[in-house]
Amino acid sequence: MKKFMNQPATVVDDYLRGLAGAHRSIVEWDSENRVLQRRDGPSKAKVGLVGGGGSGCEPTHTGFVGYGMLDAAAPGQIFTSPGPNQIVAATRRANQGKGVLHVIKNFTGEVMNFGMAEEILYFEDIDVAQVIVNDDVSIPDDGETAGRRGLGATVFVEKIAGAAAEQGYDLASVKALAERVIARSGTFSVGLSSCTSPARGKPVYELGDAEMDLGIGISGEPGRERVPLGTAQETADIMANEVLSDLAPPQGAELLMLVNGMGGTPHQELYLLAGELAEAAISRGFSVERQLVGSFVTSLDQAGAAVTFLQLDDELKRLWDAPVETVALRWGR
Amino acid sequence: MKKFMNQPATVVDDYLRGLAGAHRSIVEWDSENRVLQRRDGPSKAKVGLVGGGGSGCEPTHTGFVGYGMLDAAAPGQIFTSPGPNQIVAATRRANQGKGVLHVIKNFTGEVMNFGMAEEILYFEDIDVAQVIVNDDVSIPDDGETAGRRGLGATVFVEKIAGAAAEQGYDLASVKALAERVIARSGTFSVGLSSCTSPARGKPVYELGDAEMDLGIGISGEPGRERVPLGTAQETADIMANEVLSDLAPPQGAELLMLVNGMGGTPHQELYLLAGELAEAAISRGFSVERQLVGSFVTSLDQAGAAVTFLQLDDELKRLWDAPVETVALRWGR
Repeated sequence: MKKFMNQPATVVDDYLRGLAGAHRSIVEWDSENRVLQRRDGPSKAKVGLVGGGGSGCEPTHTGFVGYGMLDAAAPGQIFTSPGPNQIVAATRRANQGKGVLHVIKNFTGEVMNFGMAEEILYFEDIDVAQVIVNDDVSIPDDGETAGRRGLGATVFVEKIAGAAAEQGYDLASVKALAERVIARSGTFSVGLSSCTSPARGKPVYELGDAEMDLGIGISGEPGRERVPLGTAQETADIMANEVLSDLAPPQGAELLMLVNGMGGTPHQELYLLAGELAEAAISRGFSVERQLVGSFVTSLDQAGAAVTFLQLDDELKRLWDAPVETVALRWGR
Repeated sequence: MKKFMNQPATVVDDYLRGLAGAHRSIVEWDSENRVLQRRDGPSKAKVGLVGGGGSGCEPTHTGFVGYGMLDAAAPGQIFTSPGPNQIVAATRRANQGKGVLHVIKNFTGEVMNFGMAEEILYFEDIDVAQVIVNDDVSIPDDGETAGRRGLGATVFVEKIAGAAAEQGYDLASVKALAERVIARSGTFSVGLSSCTSPARGKPVYELGDAEMDLGIGISGEPGRERVPLGTAQETADIMANEVLSDLAPPQGAELLMLVNGMGGTPHQELYLLAGELAEAAISRGFSVERQLVGSFVTSLDQAGAAVTFLQLDDELKRLWDAPVETVALRWGR
């Protein structure tokens, strides 16, 4: 295993110490409660936003704490949900008297632990609501599984709900908006390699030299199908088709597109793929109005990429464009 | 080889098409002249800034075109300098009547081709100056080699000189400032893997499973020494020592630190390493005033990282903090 790390047991703490040290004006790391929180609260009380989940998917959620996105994040150990007490602490920190929204990715452990935290919080004077992000179109939406995983749409939900909260929307409106983003988003992921977790020290699985893995997760889960590695154009065509046939936006719909690297795929390849994905969407009769390209919802050092499309409307576009100042997203401020 | 690409011959064009499509409000790609240029010119005439070099090091230089940094970039083929005509075209595009500064990384081909472009431009009514970035402390500064390579300090030079140009500094002042940044910067790089170029299709060299490579370049050059892979703390100690003993800032000096990924190293590892590097600098009696952590001067899909330290002063700090709006750096605007 070749990683910049000290020892497996301290990876998450060492990372958070580095992150908080590098961005002292934006975030602080409460190592006792294991909460990464905004350094400065907002100028007036607003709905609080909390995200959380297993580590290894950085900058989700820790890189999204700050003005216009999350008030606090609860990072678990690698590929492991944060505990209920940690989520409770993050919620208390985020609470400003206007209620708190939990943004949960649809993974069994995360859904369970957020639920337990909400039971604990039920006896406190904090109004808590939740949304479950489940945008992974590679999993059938048929009630036979734990459902679709939460992937790239998490970035859209946290950005758009965060902007709405900053602009004074109330808890019910922020939650409804987050649910609209989830309903209008879909993601499909392609792996070119497995990933190596610090504790295990070797790749989770092996993938052939000329194979790509369709429908991977973000915790080292293999995909649903292995196919020969194609050109970027062929791969983009598969990815766009999977998402857009499932999402089925009306012809001419305006889309927000995230082209997301899994951690080990560089800038050059992601933008190259983004060019092909944009053409694939345009050739199907859609308009790609906004793009975000980079590694935002990752799986440690895995090589691969995912596309997320969101069908925009005027309100979603305005909130997407609103100022944000976090470690990983920063514009307009 | 596992990359998102169509064919080796079109990688650079396909990438630039994707980049320009994703950021239509910031840049445009002139495929005929092979120049990536600012979409909107500045509101009033200023000194123009041009960067250029082999591709494969993205987002250098293409990701740094926009408000507060470069006016135009000339990207060559992978690990190959842009041609003189391409640099001439970029310079004409950047020229607003106040002169143009060429930011050149110290690689033989780039120095030569920028020099040839400057000879051609000598007969035009454009005042051209150049600076050569040579911050790689892994190479002895003894006149026996082609000199130190230009690495992470390129980001500092383009950002700080770009802010000065935007604020109305004249050509001589922008050049003097860029030279001050270069003189006060040093970089040391560590590789955990080789990289794979699209044309070659396999790693440039092999590195043992438990080795790291000290003093690598950004075009697949191996390092000067292979040592056993250490902990992040041990590695940070080597890196900080190499740069700070060479740069020798006075005790208590304020530093800007770039922790730069080589392309295949994820966010989590870079911030973890940044935490150790900041501690290494602080323990040597310096103050780490600003940090930039991410993959900015890369070598395709190589795993590894570099640290660049710049000894700040008030003017450099003010210009570093000034607003910027490019693909890869964006704040305050």
